[in-house]
Amino acid sequence: MIIDHLDEPLPGSSLRPTPPGHAYTDPSIFASEQAEIFEKMWNCVLRADALPSVGHWKTVRIGREEVIVVRTRKAGVQAYFNVCAHRGMRVCTAAKGRSRTLQCGYHAWTYALEGDLVAAPNLTSMPDVDRQQYGLRRVQVREWLGYVWVCLAEEPPDFDEAVLGEVRTRFGEIESIDNYGIESLRCGKTKTYDVAANWKLIIENFMECYHCATIHPELTEVIPEFADGLASQRKNGEVHGSNFGQDVHGFTVDGSASGFGELPSIAPGQDRRYYAITVKPQVFINTVPDHVIIHRMFPVSESRTTVVCDWLFLPEVVAKAEADELDLTKSVELFHRVNRQDFEACELTQPSMSSKAYAGGGALVPSEHHIEEFHAWWYQTLGLRRDADAEDSAAAPPAPAPAA
Amino acid sequence: MIIDHLDEPLPGSSLRPTPPGHAYTDPSIFASEQAEIFEKMWNCVLRADALPSVGHWKTVRIGREEVIVVRTRKAGVQAYFNVCAHRGMRVCTAAKGRSRTLQCGYHAWTYALEGDLVAAPNLTSMPDVDRQQYGLRRVQVREWLGYVWVCLAEEPPDFDEAVLGEVRTRFGEIESIDNYGIESLRCGKTKTYDVAANWKLIIENFMECYHCATIHPELTEVIPEFADGLASQRKNGEVHGSNFGQDVHGFTVDGSASGFGELPSIAPGQDRRYYAITVKPQVFINTVPDHVIIHRMFPVSESRTTVVCDWLFLPEVVAKAEADELDLTKSVELFHRVNRQDFEACELTQPSMSSKAYAGGGALVPSEHHIEEFHAWWYQTLGLRRDADAEDSAAAPPAPAPAA
Amino acid sequence: MIIDHLDEPLPGSSLRPTPPGHAYTDPSIFASEQAEIFEKMWNCVLRADALPSVGHWKTVRIGREEVIVVRTRKAGVQAYFNVCAHRGMRVCTAAKGRSRTLQCGYHAWTYALEGDLVAAPNLTSMPDVDRQQYGLRRVQVREWLGYVWVCLAEEPPDFDEAVLGEVRTRFGEIESIDNYGIESLRCGKTKTYDVAANWKLIIENFMECYHCATIHPELTEVIPEFADGLASQRKNGEVHGSNFGQDVHGFTVDGSASGFGELPSIAPGQDRRYYAITVKPQVFINTVPDHVIIHRMFPVSESRTTVVCDWLFLPEVVAKAEADELDLTKSVELFHRVNRQDFEACELTQPSMSSKAYAGGGALVPSEHHIEEFHAWWYQTLGLRRDADAEDSAAAPPAPAPAA
Repeated sequence: MIIDHLDEPLPGSSLRPTPPGHAYTDPSIFASEQAEIFEKMWNCVLRADALPSVGHWKTVRIGREEVIVVRTRKAGVQAYFNVCAHRGMRVCTAAKGRSRTLQCGYHAWTYALEGDLVAAPNLTSMPDVDRQQYGLRRVQVREWLGYVWVCLAEEPPDFDEAVLGEVRTRFGEIESIDNYGIESLRCGKTKTYDVAANWKLIIENFMECYHCATIHPELTEVIPEFADGLASQRKNGEVHGSNFGQDVHGFTVDGSASGFGELPSIAPGQDRRYYAITVKPQVFINTVPDHVIIHRMFPVSESRTTVVCDWLFLPEVVAKAEADELDLTKSVELFHRVNRQDFEACELTQPSMSSKAYAGGGALVPSEHHIEEFHAWWYQTLGLRRDADAEDSAAAPPAPAPAA
Repeated sequence: MIIDHLDEPLPGSSLRPTPPGHAYTDPSIFASEQAEIFEKMWNCVLRADALPSVGHWKTVRIGREEVIVVRTRKAGVQAYFNVCAHRGMRVCTAAKGRSRTLQCGYHAWTYALEGDLVAAPNLTSMPDVDRQQYGLRRVQVREWLGYVWVCLAEEPPDFDEAVLGEVRTRFGEIESIDNYGIESLRCGKTKTYDVAANWKLIIENFMECYHCATIHPELTEVIPEFADGLASQRKNGEVHGSNFGQDVHGFTVDGSASGFGELPSIAPGQDRRYYAITVKPQVFINTVPDHVIIHRMFPVSESRTTVVCDWLFLPEVVAKAEADELDLTKSVELFHRVNRQDFEACELTQPSMSSKAYAGGGALVPSEHHIEEFHAWWYQTLGLRRDADAEDSAAAPPAPAPAA
Repeated sequence: MIIDHLDEPLPGSSLRPTPPGHAYTDPSIFASEQAEIFEKMWNCVLRADALPSVGHWKTVRIGREEVIVVRTRKAGVQAYFNVCAHRGMRVCTAAKGRSRTLQCGYHAWTYALEGDLVAAPNLTSMPDVDRQQYGLRRVQVREWLGYVWVCLAEEPPDFDEAVLGEVRTRFGEIESIDNYGIESLRCGKTKTYDVAANWKLIIENFMECYHCATIHPELTEVIPEFADGLASQRKNGEVHGSNFGQDVHGFTVDGSASGFGELPSIAPGQDRRYYAITVKPQVFINTVPDHVIIHRMFPVSESRTTVVCDWLFLPEVVAKAEADELDLTKSVELFHRVNRQDFEACELTQPSMSSKAYAGGGALVPSEHHIEEFHAWWYQTLGLRRDADAEDSAAAPPAPAPAA
């Protein structure tokens, strides 16, 4: 008999269940997540302007793979597994560089920026070697919001549906985010966080504001409604953005004015409001009137995740900051504190995931309903059943049960 | 066919077998030990006077769990899994503290010291949440010898039988240990040892004195009979304590007088004698006329164990030492050296446990007979068979065989 | 249906397949290699003159075991598992030493250098303990080329066939290597490398010179034919040594003269030539006219290998170097650079072994044919099938497939 806990509140309450603790600690579940989620879905990996000219490349981690992203002569930005077709050595052995071809440093097999094998010692005496088949193994690439998105799947999900769909779910349309002109913004600051927690704890944290009053004093000062624990994306069926407080002059650590103007094409309704969007599996987009904050997550193990956070401003704002005519610190500091507060909470939650007291999972209050939808998606994407009999099955995590 | 090696000496000798080496190295056997031994039996975790007043709490590790031990207003010392009933975060995030309630730092779910949920954001709008069911998950607590003992099992073994029973087995009655008044002693010194060895090697080491002549020069100077390798607890059916040497004036590193008097109510036969008791699975009690030494073991992995050793004296002795009117160093130094000597031997034994040459286990000489009883208990508690066919079975370690 | 890829070139080319990537990353395959290769075959472990007199001993690692190698009074060099027959403690707890007996430091069980148990506390009261059966567990020892070779197998392979056979395969006879008088050379320099790569990548690297032009500028300067990527051991059926370049005066980092004379009994054809021999599973021998370079590999994990490299010279040359009358640096530096260049390539290859893009393995060009023979030997020794259906089998790595 299958009991779907999604449709049943927990005993002794109307609270809703979470997955069992081992969903956050089991290396084999993490391996499934790498294979079925991060290595099959679209990942946002780097800012396109980090590859300014032909031949510039960077290596990035996607799932358990290392990928070369390179600006080619003929085909825009392309991406390849960083594995030589001959004996497998890393073709690019640095984090970034610029070159006319991609040459493996072991036996000098040499690839065009567009991927084909173009030279190798004694290659002329091996005329039957197919230059394309023995080229670098290609992965799919798209650009959006000024970022390069990469998908390792042989048959990638439709980008428009999978990625833009998340924005449409949030806003009903795609124009609302287009207003921010994110593709032409520039990165004013990037911070990288090494978080000792499972990636799902981080995404769940982003999906609720029930914790805001407890751990985010600066954020709730700027956006008072967060103190009520509400992070709803819809109110009475309408798209909901969170209003700045009455005396707040900017999205800064102390609510003072940022010192620079709003993004030129935002709609009137986007003024003095904060919007948050999650693009599963690894991107958070936060928009405020004068800048945009984008997080990219890179899961490292079942208990460790790298999070890279970009603060994006108008190019002229970044230029002035570089010339010391403007200070971005107050703007950056607000979400940097929020990040540290959130990630500390995640790190203090991770160790309990292996406790007997959390074996059946925890409880979600009503304002954490976005998390429940995320869990439903997670169960479905991994092909796991949520049922009371799951303890008998090695494949499925046991059904949630009350925590206490 | 089942051959019980307990009843058969090893070939080529009358020596007795030990478990096979992998009993000390296999992570899955260690996981069973955590589940079946440390998470089901009574563990001695901290000195009760470390929680002097209402609201004082400490976090301790038991098996693979972290537990809060707290002095409550209404119910004496209580203990809980350190896991919030809501989303699981560690409720207490330090090693110790004092507070009026136990509040989770993530979403401010707040628990009475007695465990019930008493407050949470928006809790009034969730009236159906059962305050007891969504309280902290309780674990069993007892106090004895001035220590807090905790048991994670839902149905704990009878404390009197399981714990006091070990003392009765040693002395025939419980009064002999009561004479030392351990519950009213004070801790004069605590040392913590991080030992790179399986916990069973440490307990086995404590159970025999065949090694004393080789590695404990100071101890055998004070108790000369240990040089003969005898650590028998009974002689001719009588309870046996080990006599101090003739010229020995105290249980100190050089045999000189300790500088302070005997414990007031010890019996005449306990004068100038050392007694040792093992309270399985993790406590060693050593009594001498003027102080008591208690070890608590906390297994960390199959090859690592934390040992905490307390030296307990009369409160007035500790007070004088704190006022620099008395020096406890000579008393503490004796067993500290014994500890270091023992743990070094265990650490040099651990690596061989994975050797092909120890695959069938080692050999026990007659004076190591207490170890043999420990092994029998270990096999039984884990539900393992000791038989010659065990190599065919994944569940049971292979039967012991000659080492050479 | 079984398809042996050894007999089939890769699609889209006449290139030959390698084993799949997980052969280099799977801990269970590595455990098989330890059990079936390193713990069953002859290992070259130390220079015999490192044990100059009776009682000198060293401990060495073979496979997953620690072994004592000792010069005995009656039986030359002998070797034992470093495991006491009583309770298993390491008998020798240092890397080297000298003693009249081998005594365990735990309970003083004492063994003759020849292995038998000769003393223990209370041993006289245990007259039935068989001194031989409770002696140290012996392992097989041979000496050749001035090295001690050890085999852990109870029934070791025939030394002449297994070890000398590799030399006969290379040279057709054994005399060619005898000419170098390696057993009477002395070690002028030893360097130890901790390489973050699977041992097979290191052996494969040694077996081809297709990489020489790319990574070994100094070596190809001294031996110009290596720049063509040829490292063939036979040419037109004849034994082939690699010739020094015309203007090269010695096998030194800059091709200048070494400053000391040739080994006295080398044959005319061995003059101005370099020969390389692999003695599977862990020895590389390189001979040049005036010295010999010998590598010993000790696999530590599936992704880590210790390599020890000795530079051997005539005793009088080493004596002069010690007296500062001669400088060996130029000779040593050449292969030290080659080592670092090779090991860096191996370390940059190891991470790709777990990539999806290398799941089917890589490709071998014709001049890498020695590697293909090594792979055939590896499959056979581990009892693995090479077939297209292997993906269905947990035991066998999947059949190689094109990399791109």
